Amino acid sequence: MNLILLLEEDLITKDRVILYGRRLEHISKVHRANTGDTLNVGLLNSLMGRGKIISMDKRSVEMEITLDHEPPPPLPLTLVIALPRPKMLRRILQSAAALGIKEIYIINSWRVEKSFWLSPFLAPDRLKNELITGLEQAKDTIMPKIYLKRLFKPFVTEELLLLAKGGRSSRLSTSSTSAANNSGINQCKPVAITAHPGAIYPCPERITQSSILVMGPEGGFIDIEIATLEQAGFTTVNIGRRILRLETAVPFIVSKLY
Amino acid sequence: MNLILLLEEDLITKDRVILYGRRLEHISKVHRANTGDTLNVGLLNSLMGRGKIISMDKRSVEMEITLDHEPPPPLPLTLVIALPRPKMLRRILQSAAALGIKEIYIINSWRVEKSFWLSPFLAPDRLKNELITGLEQAKDTIMPKIYLKRLFKPFVTEELLLLAKGGRSSRLSTSSTSAANNSGINQCKPVAITAHPGAIYPCPERITQSSILVMGPEGGFIDIEIATLEQAGFTTVNIGRRILRLETAVPFIVSKLY
Repeated sequence: MNLILLLEEDLITKDRVILYGRRLEHISKVHRANTGDTLNVGLLNSLMGRGKIISMDKRSVEMEITLDHEPPPPLPLTLVIALPRPKMLRRILQSAAALGIKEIYIINSWRVEKSFWLSPFLAPDRLKNELITGLEQAKDTIMPKIYLKRLFKPFVTEELLLLAKGGRSSRLSTSSTSAANNSGINQCKPVAITAHPGAIYPCPERITQSSILVMGPEGGFIDIEIATLEQAGFTTVNIGRRILRLETAVPFIVSKLY
Repeated sequence: MNLILLLEEDLITKDRVILYGRRLEHISKVHRANTGDTLNVGLLNSLMGRGKIISMDKRSVEMEITLDHEPPPPLPLTLVIALPRPKMLRRILQSAAALGIKEIYIINSWRVEKSFWLSPFLAPDRLKNELITGLEQAKDTIMPKIYLKRLFKPFVTEELLLLAKGGRSSRLSTSSTSAANNSGINQCKPVAITAHPGAIYPCPERITQSSILVMGPEGGFIDIEIATLEQAGFTTVNIGRRILRLETAVPFIVSKLY
């Protein structure tokens, strides 16, 4: 937790917060902080700054906060992943949030095990907890949006096709616009790719547009899924001879693209 | 398991193997393969090819193998990490092996919890199992070497200093020489960097030399450790405003460098 993420309901006045539970425990046991110490804080979907501990006991910690700078710019990449096994899902969500990804689509695919869709980790609060962990790790305050899409074909042929044509997702075109503009990203048609082992084209590098990255399940997309994605405007690309797991491949590709 | 990794002791003749246990189970339950099917195989520290299932029952599987091509070239990067918590260690070893890293030093540092050094996962066989998982994932056969270094200062001021000056590690200068030469990597002094949040210099990109990448524990190296590394020739570099966990940062940096 490199940043203590604050929620609106933690505020008792406009510059005071009281925290309990998980964050209190982290502040006392990991940071080993005491009254008078200052810590990095940030208000969810808002500014970041410093919090000075005014008082602290076993039940709560009170801080005086100064919020004076913007969170880091969002990564202009929309991530579309076939639902992985729950443990991997948790890690990839933390990692995606830490990398600055703000739009995550979790989709079905032929090789996704049906039972994964029954996982308790797909509950909105559980998903959100993983994203918060990633934001706290990377020092960011802007909560990513997650969309669950259980029907592959209508999602790809309708929604994803539209996104690939440059139909902006609501998120990047509204709340994060100023940050996206600041990051010098070209607002035209996004680079739309499916990372797939054995593909002929190499992964693009150092792009200046936004992008949509689609990644298959363990064992990969089946041929007809790749064909459907190609018809929707997605170029199938490889990232080298080595087949990487989702959690390794995502930061690897993000780093290539930007 | 995108590749079934074979050991010398699995060979019953020069082109026949019998497998039991974990690999048998994977072949029957995940690949759902039957007699007559062929699978990707590779011999540890040797060639890769195909294995055709000759017979298979609940106790064992026999394959006829043809080994006819080289594993992918090694990544010319030596990874030096402060010992992370055991769960993270397992994942980072799998990921490092999948990325093609062949030299891994695990070191102590002020902020490494002492108890981590008592973890049963540091037993040579346990470490090796994680590396095998990474090789099987990425389709590679060359086993990385792991060195455990519990004394930070003598390691950095003696061994690491020598490596940074271009004293070659035994591994990359012998068994992997042909592959390293094939990869077009310049054999001169390596790029030596410590990735550290808040560092002034940016991480180098698209280098043509080999490299040594040092990464600290959760919470980072302390100032005197950074100073010791700098004296040993390591430039302290940042990878952006976001602080990434080890398992996310390593593929991110590898992808920047090569």
